[in-house]
Amino acid sequence: MSKLAGKKRPLDAGEKAILATKKKIKGTDEVLAQVDKLCSLAKKEPARAKTLAELHLPQACREVIEKDADAVLDEVEASLYTVAASILRGEGFSYDVPLRTKGNQMYVPELDRIVLKDACGQRPFANTQTNRKAVITTRVLGLVHELCRKRIHVTKRDLFYTDVKLFQDQLQSDNVLEDVACMLGCTRSSLHVVASEKGVVVGRLTFREDGDLINCQRMGVGGKAVPPNVDKVTEIRSDAMFILLVEKDAAFMRLAEDRFYNTYPCIILTAKGQPDVATRIFLKRLRDVLRIPVLALVDADPYGLKILSVYMKGSMNMSYDSSNLTTPDIKWLGVRPSDLDRFNIPEQCRLPMTDEDIKTGKRLLEEEFVQANPAWVRELEIMVTSKVKAEIQALSSFGFQYLSQVYLPLKLQEGDWI
Amino acid sequence: MSKLAGKKRPLDAGEKAILATKKKIKGTDEVLAQVDKLCSLAKKEPARAKTLAELHLPQACREVIEKDADAVLDEVEASLYTVAASILRGEGFSYDVPLRTKGNQMYVPELDRIVLKDACGQRPFANTQTNRKAVITTRVLGLVHELCRKRIHVTKRDLFYTDVKLFQDQLQSDNVLEDVACMLGCTRSSLHVVASEKGVVVGRLTFREDGDLINCQRMGVGGKAVPPNVDKVTEIRSDAMFILLVEKDAAFMRLAEDRFYNTYPCIILTAKGQPDVATRIFLKRLRDVLRIPVLALVDADPYGLKILSVYMKGSMNMSYDSSNLTTPDIKWLGVRPSDLDRFNIPEQCRLPMTDEDIKTGKRLLEEEFVQANPAWVRELEIMVTSKVKAEIQALSSFGFQYLSQVYLPLKLQEGDWI
Repeated sequence: MSKLAGKKRPLDAGEKAILATKKKIKGTDEVLAQVDKLCSLAKKEPARAKTLAELHLPQACREVIEKDADAVLDEVEASLYTVAASILRGEGFSYDVPLRTKGNQMYVPELDRIVLKDACGQRPFANTQTNRKAVITTRVLGLVHELCRKRIHVTKRDLFYTDVKLFQDQLQSDNVLEDVACMLGCTRSSLHVVASEKGVVVGRLTFREDGDLINCQRMGVGGKAVPPNVDKVTEIRSDAMFILLVEKDAAFMRLAEDRFYNTYPCIILTAKGQPDVATRIFLKRLRDVLRIPVLALVDADPYGLKILSVYMKGSMNMSYDSSNLTTPDIKWLGVRPSDLDRFNIPEQCRLPMTDEDIKTGKRLLEEEFVQANPAWVRELEIMVTSKVKAEIQALSSFGFQYLSQVYLPLKLQEGDWI
Repeated sequence: MSKLAGKKRPLDAGEKAILATKKKIKGTDEVLAQVDKLCSLAKKEPARAKTLAELHLPQACREVIEKDADAVLDEVEASLYTVAASILRGEGFSYDVPLRTKGNQMYVPELDRIVLKDACGQRPFANTQTNRKAVITTRVLGLVHELCRKRIHVTKRDLFYTDVKLFQDQLQSDNVLEDVACMLGCTRSSLHVVASEKGVVVGRLTFREDGDLINCQRMGVGGKAVPPNVDKVTEIRSDAMFILLVEKDAAFMRLAEDRFYNTYPCIILTAKGQPDVATRIFLKRLRDVLRIPVLALVDADPYGLKILSVYMKGSMNMSYDSSNLTTPDIKWLGVRPSDLDRFNIPEQCRLPMTDEDIKTGKRLLEEEFVQANPAWVRELEIMVTSKVKAEIQALSSFGFQYLSQVYLPLKLQEGDWI
C-alpha cells in the first residue's frame, strides 16, 4: 500500500477557498429542497401539453404523431387506395405531398415550437418534373409497408441500399422518407426507420426494451445505450426528482462513477455532443411519462447553447415532427458564463472566443427561445461581452470530483437554474 | 390490421435466387459445426500468449502491463525515491524516460506485434531543453498518484484542466501521460486515465461492472455501452461460441433486433466505426478470458480492413501498450471482395473506389499482417484490381434481414472465414 498517501501538508489559498465552498453544502434533504419545489411544479402541469388540434388556430396546420405499426399499415394502404381511386376517376396517378419548405413553416407561441402550415404539392406520375419522385414515393411506401408488416427496424442507409438503382443517392431516399412521414401523418420512427443512437443513460430509471427489463441504476459506469427504437420502450418507472442532461461524456462518466444519482435521485443522460434523434425522442418520452424537470449541464460556450436549442426547439428540416422531438422546458443549470466569476474559474481555464463563436453567440441572442427568457439573455450577453468561454471540465481545476461533490450540489441547493 | 399483407404474386428471378441461397442453410447444429471446430482450436491454445520476457530475445525490450491501483502507487513512489536518491548523490533531479519514437520500436514475429526497444532518454530538471517537461512529468506523476489513491477515473481532458497554466495545451499533458505509463511499466488505463467509450455490446455475455451484474442478453436492441474502465469489469461469463465484431452500428442494430445471438450463440460487439481504446481493451479481455474465436464483419473496402488492422496490430504511437490493446487472431468473415460475385451483389451497390482508396489498398498489401495471410492478400488483390468496394448494407438489396437470416448463417455453415 502507498506509503506517502497519509502525509499531510498545510492547505494553500486556493485549496482553502474550495474547502469554504464545500462547507456551504448542507444535508441531502436541504440540497434537494429547491429541486423538490421545481418537481412539484412539473407534476402540476397538465398531464400533456396542448395539441395543435386543441388550439383551434385560424390557419390550418400540420403535425405528425407517433403511430403503431398497424396504424401505419392502414395509412399506407389508404394512401394507395386514394391514388387508385384517382386513376379510376381518370384523374391520373398522383400523390398529395405536404410541403416542408421554410415558407410552409410557422412558429406557434402557444406550443413554443415550429409546425407546418397546410400547403401541399402535387406529385403526378405523368409529368417529367415529378415522375421520378412519384416512383420513389411508391417504392418507399412499399418498403415502409414491409417494415411495419415484419415489425423490424432499419436505418436510412439500409433503406437506400434496397434499391440503389432507383434512388441513385441516399439524399433522394432520405428526402422522400420525410415526405412519406408527413403524408402519413406519423413520425419517421413510426415508419420503422430509425437513427443510430449515440446516447447513454444511467440513474434512477427502469424500463422494458423489447421485453427486457433494464435497470439503469445497475449499469456500471458505462451506462445503458439509449434505445434506437422508442416504440419498443415500455413500463418507464423512476423515483428520480430530475433528469440531468449532460453535454459531454467526460462529465457523464464522472457522475456515473461517483454514482451521483444515489445521493441525489436523478436520471443522467448524454448524447455525447450534438444530440441525435434517438436521444431526443428518449428525453422527450422520459419527460412526458415521468413529469420531472430537466436540468442541463453544458459548456459555457455558444455551442453548448446550440445543443440546448436542438433539444428544446429541434431542427428546421424536421419541424413537422417537433412535437415528438423537442422538450421545451429545459432549465439551464450550468456551466453558465456568470459561473466563471462566481466559482473563481482560473484565468487559464477560460478560453478566448473565436470570431465565429462570437457571431454564433450574437445570432443566438436574436433567437426567440433565448429572448423568451431574460435570464438567458443576460448570460449570453456576459458571454459575448467578456469574449471568454469555458468547458465543463474547467471545474476539474479544483479537483476531479469538484463537479459531483461541490458544484452540482451547491447549484441544486441554491435552485440556481434559469 | 393490414388488408394487403396476405396477397401473393409470383417471384421474379432475383427473388428465386435469394430463395435458392436461403435453402442451402441447414439446421442450427449443422450451421455451427465449423464454428465449433474453430472454437475447439481456440480453447486448445495455451491459456495465455507468450510474454516478452519468456521469449528471451537477444535485444532487451519493453512492454507495459495492467497494474492495480496499489501497484501503480508503489511505482509512482519508487520513481520519486529514485529521483530523490539521485539528488542526494549529487547527480541532480532527472527522470529516465523510455523513448517511444519509431527508431525505438521493433516488430516481434513471435508475438506478432510491435514492442519498444530499451532506449531511454534523460529528462533533467537543470537543463533549459527539458526543464518544462521534467516539471510536467512531476505534476502528472502527482495527479496519477491522486487518482489511484482515490480510486477514481478521469479523461485526458480532465487531467489537462487540472493545471492549464502548466500544461498550456492538451498535447503536452497527453504526451507526458504516455511517457509516464512507459516509465511505470503499466497501461494508460492502469493510471486511471481512460478514453471515452463509443462501443456497444449485446449477446450471450454476463459480467460485473463496478459491482453491477450486467446481462447482455437482456439489453434490448440498443445494447450495453462498453465499460470505459476495464479494471472495474469482473466475473466475465459466457456460453457464446464466438465473438462477432461488427464495424457499423446499422449492422449491429439489425443483429440485435433479430436476436441473432439466440439462434447462433455469440457476443456481438461494435465500436461504431474507428475502434476506440475502451472497445479494443474490452475485446482483448473477452478474447483472453473466454478463449473463443473472433469473427469480423466489416465493409469490403480498404477502410474496413484498416479497422481490422487497428484491432489486430494497434496504432504506432501506442505500441508500448500493444499487448493489452491488440487481438491478433481475428478472422475476416465478411464482407469480402470475393463475396460480391459469390453473393451476386447488384452492380449498383458496388461503389467505384477513389484514387485514395486504391492507394490505401495497395499500402495495406505491403503490410506484414496482411502478407502473413495469403488468403487476405488474394482478397485485397481482387479489391484493388476490380476497383470496386461495397458496404455491409449492400446486402440489404436482397431484403432487410438477408444479413441475419441468410448471409451470416451460410458463412458460418461453410466455415467461410480467412
